[in-house]
Amino acid sequence: MEEKVFQILDKFVKKDDVLIVGVSGGVDSVVLLDILVKFVKKTPLKLVIAHVNHGLRGKESDADEELVKWYAKKFGLQFEFKKLDLDSLQKKNCVPNLEAKCREKRYEFFGKLLRKYKAKYVVTAHHLNDNLETVLLNFVRGAGLNGLTGMNICGNDIFRPFLHINKKEILKYATENDLKFYNDYTNFDEKYARNRLRLKVIPELKKINPNLEKSFWENLENLREIKDLIERQIPLAVFVKGEIKFNIVEFRALHLALQKAFLIDLYKKAHGSTYYFTSKHMEQILKVLNSGKGNVKKEFGPGQMILVEGKTGIVRDN
Amino acid sequence: MEEKVFQILDKFVKKDDVLIVGVSGGVDSVVLLDILVKFVKKTPLKLVIAHVNHGLRGKESDADEELVKWYAKKFGLQFEFKKLDLDSLQKKNCVPNLEAKCREKRYEFFGKLLRKYKAKYVVTAHHLNDNLETVLLNFVRGAGLNGLTGMNICGNDIFRPFLHINKKEILKYATENDLKFYNDYTNFDEKYARNRLRLKVIPELKKINPNLEKSFWENLENLREIKDLIERQIPLAVFVKGEIKFNIVEFRALHLALQKAFLIDLYKKAHGSTYYFTSKHMEQILKVLNSGKGNVKKEFGPGQMILVEGKTGIVRDN
Repeated sequence: MEEKVFQILDKFVKKDDVLIVGVSGGVDSVVLLDILVKFVKKTPLKLVIAHVNHGLRGKESDADEELVKWYAKKFGLQFEFKKLDLDSLQKKNCVPNLEAKCREKRYEFFGKLLRKYKAKYVVTAHHLNDNLETVLLNFVRGAGLNGLTGMNICGNDIFRPFLHINKKEILKYATENDLKFYNDYTNFDEKYARNRLRLKVIPELKKINPNLEKSFWENLENLREIKDLIERQIPLAVFVKGEIKFNIVEFRALHLALQKAFLIDLYKKAHGSTYYFTSKHMEQILKVLNSGKGNVKKEFGPGQMILVEGKTGIVRDN
Repeated sequence: MEEKVFQILDKFVKKDDVLIVGVSGGVDSVVLLDILVKFVKKTPLKLVIAHVNHGLRGKESDADEELVKWYAKKFGLQFEFKKLDLDSLQKKNCVPNLEAKCREKRYEFFGKLLRKYKAKYVVTAHHLNDNLETVLLNFVRGAGLNGLTGMNICGNDIFRPFLHINKKEILKYATENDLKFYNDYTNFDEKYARNRLRLKVIPELKKINPNLEKSFWENLENLREIKDLIERQIPLAVFVKGEIKFNIVEFRALHLALQKAFLIDLYKKAHGSTYYFTSKHMEQILKVLNSGKGNVKKEFGPGQMILVEGKTGIVRDN
């Protein structure tokens, strides 16, 4: 496994790069840290450990923090941490999905560290089984091609060198190298959709196909190629004075699948994520843009409008 | 529900068409038959009932046959049936997947009836939940975009007017119309992958998303649009004297995703199905075809070769 990860690292990082390593204290991230430290002996890199204390499990959360601090000291690495105040998060925002909110806060913290250290990537320990869960979850929620291609090894400043490694290999490495780590017991709490998949659904799917991870990876590769093909065919949108502009005539000539891919891309450019872009909203926008009229507009995500002015499509603030 | 199905029927059939209706005696196909008989009062059609006795459940299988025969008599329709000899099927062919073998035999029988009656379609009662299972099964087995788009309402002489109707609606119709049908108890036998999905996996997924079928259908529509986009971009292969020929220069200029889609299409043309076309075999063929050489060949499914002769790609019998 070490070799497999070294190959990936060799592809994405070079000497003297700065990496922010997300370490929770669980087995995945502890193995990631251990392998990165070994890699540094071959290719000098600056590693910074980033730990987020979610405080979800009281004293245990603090013990995680202590463990990660201990690793930082042992390896002589910079240690950065942030404690999330979940109670106030929940009260202030009426959070419907605590896990998503935690992720958002976590990446906000990682973003700050990226800038502070002029780092190349945040490195996370997401692995093949995490990705399988993500894709299944997207499938269940109806996310289309983008959702079905799952996480990328590298994208948006996040680097995931374990993405084609499965959980078994990680556990084996941890045992063989006698690593200390904590079990995250919230993983056994079935109230989270992801855990429902991990504990109930995936074991059943593996009874149908014991090589589920391998088939899944092949499937993913195929869908990624298709996604790449599509991305090469969508027209360019350009930023002009804080607005996003595109050619509406060119847009109307596109195949419906490409029109949708273009709008998804546009929405992502405007809002950073397509999490709240529903298929119903997509239909409405398509209707407006394809109406052939040169003077129409429609709401396009929070605070923005999409409109047609003559031969130009525009996304601008409300 | 009746209205929804009538709309679909209006789209695909016209006066005096001949339809072979697959009726097992289970609730789905009995409801299908009942709705078709009502439709015939509006638009005269010739309906022929086709029943396959799988003999998997002994006396119960014979009772199913009697029930379907009773319906045929009641509605004054032609009745065709075939009894499968599963014991000899299993012994002769070392069948790894009995369900697949039964399906093959069933469609062989349907094909004969299509020709005998000069019928337009075989009509089956596959519904939205069947399709969800099919797609999940393909996902689990790693089938790529083609697998993820599931069954079509109409294709290869099979017409599935229930494909966007869910099981609940079918059961409701059966109750309201007081229809007689048999429960297929093999559905409760977990040794079949499909039943594992139906009984274990899908209920868990519905806890995550109670509108699973709706999200699934939207997802499917998106993937179908993408499939259509791709199919429009793959080059034509032509049949010349029992061989399939294509332009190898054109092929080599394609995006990898299109090369794969083209080869899948070619395999389907040559063998009727891509069930045994593995990703490993695909890789090998791609390597040979893209090698740039003008005189290479490779096995292409049972009894066939794919080869390059100068500027022409050819699929021919071994």
